[in-house]
Amino acid sequence: MTRKILVTGACGFIGRYASKQFADAGYLVTGIGHGEWDKGEAARFGVSCWHSCDVNMESMAAYAGQPDAIVHCAGGGSVQFSMEHPALDFERTVSSTLAVLEYVRSRSHASVVVYPSSAAVYGMKDDLPNRESDSLVPTSPYGAHKVMGEQLCRSYATNFGLNVAIVRLFSVYGEGLRKQLMWDSCSRFDQGDTRFAGSGRELRDWLHVKDAARLLSIAVEHGAPTCPTVNGGSGIGVEVADLIALLRDAYGVDTPLRFSGEVRSGDPQGYQASIAKAKAWGWSPSIDLETGVRDYATWFRGLR
Amino acid sequence: MTRKILVTGACGFIGRYASKQFADAGYLVTGIGHGEWDKGEAARFGVSCWHSCDVNMESMAAYAGQPDAIVHCAGGGSVQFSMEHPALDFERTVSSTLAVLEYVRSRSHASVVVYPSSAAVYGMKDDLPNRESDSLVPTSPYGAHKVMGEQLCRSYATNFGLNVAIVRLFSVYGEGLRKQLMWDSCSRFDQGDTRFAGSGRELRDWLHVKDAARLLSIAVEHGAPTCPTVNGGSGIGVEVADLIALLRDAYGVDTPLRFSGEVRSGDPQGYQASIAKAKAWGWSPSIDLETGVRDYATWFRGLR
Repeated sequence: MTRKILVTGACGFIGRYASKQFADAGYLVTGIGHGEWDKGEAARFGVSCWHSCDVNMESMAAYAGQPDAIVHCAGGGSVQFSMEHPALDFERTVSSTLAVLEYVRSRSHASVVVYPSSAAVYGMKDDLPNRESDSLVPTSPYGAHKVMGEQLCRSYATNFGLNVAIVRLFSVYGEGLRKQLMWDSCSRFDQGDTRFAGSGRELRDWLHVKDAARLLSIAVEHGAPTCPTVNGGSGIGVEVADLIALLRDAYGVDTPLRFSGEVRSGDPQGYQASIAKAKAWGWSPSIDLETGVRDYATWFRGLR
Repeated sequence: MTRKILVTGACGFIGRYASKQFADAGYLVTGIGHGEWDKGEAARFGVSCWHSCDVNMESMAAYAGQPDAIVHCAGGGSVQFSMEHPALDFERTVSSTLAVLEYVRSRSHASVVVYPSSAAVYGMKDDLPNRESDSLVPTSPYGAHKVMGEQLCRSYATNFGLNVAIVRLFSVYGEGLRKQLMWDSCSRFDQGDTRFAGSGRELRDWLHVKDAARLLSIAVEHGAPTCPTVNGGSGIGVEVADLIALLRDAYGVDTPLRFSGEVRSGDPQGYQASIAKAKAWGWSPSIDLETGVRDYATWFRGLR
């Protein structure tokens, strides 16, 4: 029998690649969430059926059915947005997670839930790498809401026996990402601008979206009432200045980079994943940063 | 100028005593929340104006005004209820807290917020007493939602500069409490029943509601963007069997007590507050357990 999966936020960056990953593995993929998508584009990412709606109790009841698994990619996606609209970010991230879990508890108990969380739950840390057992001290509403989403997952798993797994994704990138550092940098290069905010010394851990999607698909096999939680990153901390230099070279620009030196509030100094737990699931990243950055630069250039 | 305070959940057990505490200190007290209350009863607890409604964005906008402080007593009040209706408990505890904080952020930034949390945030612990810096491992949806309420408080305080304080109340009791262990025990005594669930060895930390209300009033003076968090308890761990024996003696029953030995799920083995932080605020409990239990038994007997 064909396995069925519901991907919330399927029209989003990670949601698209997750949908494609599951479709390629033979799942029948239903998607719900924000965004207008024509059928052809949805089909290109393996989404058989797409419903444009908020993710809430009503839309879950209307569209979720009895899937083998739910990958809950819907949710706020920006620290900046969460600072400007914290209640809306809460609704997108926390309330939508409640709707998914409550639906599974009350109407589809056999569905495994996979929750893509974020490195933002760790917040400002001096001792890297970030380990799953670390204390969580988020430095933005976005991060706090992700912590709360995780807590709901853990509560529903342990108290009601739901099969849940959490994957804390670090800096996910790849073709199609039209925001964040790589997008902004390429946009600047196009304008001949090579000045950047921050010190350039901030550490980030870059993971290609295809590797992230593959980890989410493996997480389905590990959903359990113990709610296992793993980091999804490369395991390598890269300074922002080094990343931008790599992208600049791939993009074919030769102007020197300059950094303002100031630090944005809510933006921790460093993230680097400990990935021993994900590796114990048999996963490891397959796309190295040089290749991924080159592909991104090629894709971006193709947009012009 | 008269100081104004909004007490959410003012009709509830802790809300009533908190209202009375603030009214006695000269505050003008407005109450909102669940419960039907006639004017005389509300006035008896110092509530000048009562609005029976959910605590949400709409009711806050309609009734909150620009108070000097908001004591957010509204919220779920039962582990059992949270197991049966987790989404409703979430709404009562977490969504209502979001409404209070979002109202203060957007429309009444000068209001101090005091959040009565619960010892349930600690969950199962072997190393007592519970310290505020302990990791939080709640064992029920009720406890998980209280953790999430705290997290919202901390997020709004640190990210938006709100003045917030959190008080983690342990087992609050006193005249008027018509649920939980003391109520159930007296009800059993009346029926000649002296058998109890559990081992009787579970530790609880009992705090008289008047001492709890006084701590909440002191917390108003400590609200800050650092979101200080203190335990509210007696500092003494009392075995359930000893508490019931004390209550039995006060109630004038002489049948021996029997315990089933089983352990209820979601009910941690032990709570005992470290109260050094609250003491550093100049607070300490004033009503000892013997006196409080005797008063409770007298009140209960008076209901017949």
